[in-house]
Amino acid sequence: VHEAVAQLVAERGSAAVNVADVAAASGVHPTSIYRRWGTLEGLLLDVALARIEKDAPIPDKGSLRSDLLAFAKQASTTISGPDGFALLRAIIAMDDVQPDRDGVRSASRARLLARRGAQLQEMLDRAKARGERPLEFTDVLDGLLAPIYMRFLFGVGGVDRAYLAHLVDRLVMAPSRARRGRRK
Amino acid sequence: VHEAVAQLVAERGSAAVNVADVAAASGVHPTSIYRRWGTLEGLLLDVALARIEKDAPIPDKGSLRSDLLAFAKQASTTISGPDGFALLRAIIAMDDVQPDRDGVRSASRARLLARRGAQLQEMLDRAKARGERPLEFTDVLDGLLAPIYMRFLFGVGGVDRAYLAHLVDRLVMAPSRARRGRRK
Repeated sequence: VHEAVAQLVAERGSAAVNVADVAAASGVHPTSIYRRWGTLEGLLLDVALARIEKDAPIPDKGSLRSDLLAFAKQASTTISGPDGFALLRAIIAMDDVQPDRDGVRSASRARLLARRGAQLQEMLDRAKARGERPLEFTDVLDGLLAPIYMRFLFGVGGVDRAYLAHLVDRLVMAPSRARRGRRK
Repeated sequence: VHEAVAQLVAERGSAAVNVADVAAASGVHPTSIYRRWGTLEGLLLDVALARIEKDAPIPDKGSLRSDLLAFAKQASTTISGPDGFALLRAIIAMDDVQPDRDGVRSASRARLLARRGAQLQEMLDRAKARGERPLEFTDVLDGLLAPIYMRFLFGVGGVDRAYLAHLVDRLVMAPSRARRGRRK
């Protein structure tokens, strides 16, 4: 199913892919696709994340600074490529992001993103075990991924090597977060 | 034209609106719409921004901290409502964000967002003129808008009053940025 989606998205762009075509191309019944992924958007998000996990594995370079810098470089490369764009597009399209609907909302966005978040947390926990600054993955989301993604989306500011290094420095040398406690 | 778009988006959602319908509802020729806004996405972005400017004017409360806190509260309210969502959706849909296309790209995203950025910079320049910490609007993008938007998009972390205050504190009391110089 993943291969069928990747193929169709490459051919037509993600906006022109539907579950019926994915079912036909993969030989898997549409009902099974809906049962497993909930929605087309959930499936597209899963495929984009799987490719990102494969092409941009979480770094393990022996120091927090090196890991964060490598992660930041990956993120800035990914977001400006088709996978990162597909991921953003899939997230935006998901039912549980849209504010103008009530009723049942899919939790698949949070579930899918949690997998990558857990991998990132393992990287941070390795640093903590080495005696380096303990960070939560939400710190990396706020201080690294968020500015990189927003500068790309808004088309302002620019993201070069010096800027990424600056963001990493701020995370590695951030003042104590004791004031706001530990957030989930 | 703006009213016609707002009406159509409210009735059908932004994904089901097209230029022909907007032209019919507003009595403006489609060619004129394309000439003015370039693409449907440019028009949708312009409408979302105009509504945000109207409903969430840039604060002027007499201190940098109060202004930033009011701006952060507005942003977190806007992003979880239909206008903020429409804005994100329009940005994602714009030609010049999509990485898998070459050729001519619209600059309307940057042009439209620059208007809001300039208003925000005026707020920061007022603080600077009062002798408060000089900030660039990219600092507010990185340190305030980006984490608020990303936590919303990724559905993790949560954005409460204490969190917004923490983000504002970091901006108001940030260490000197002399090391990385002034960025545009």
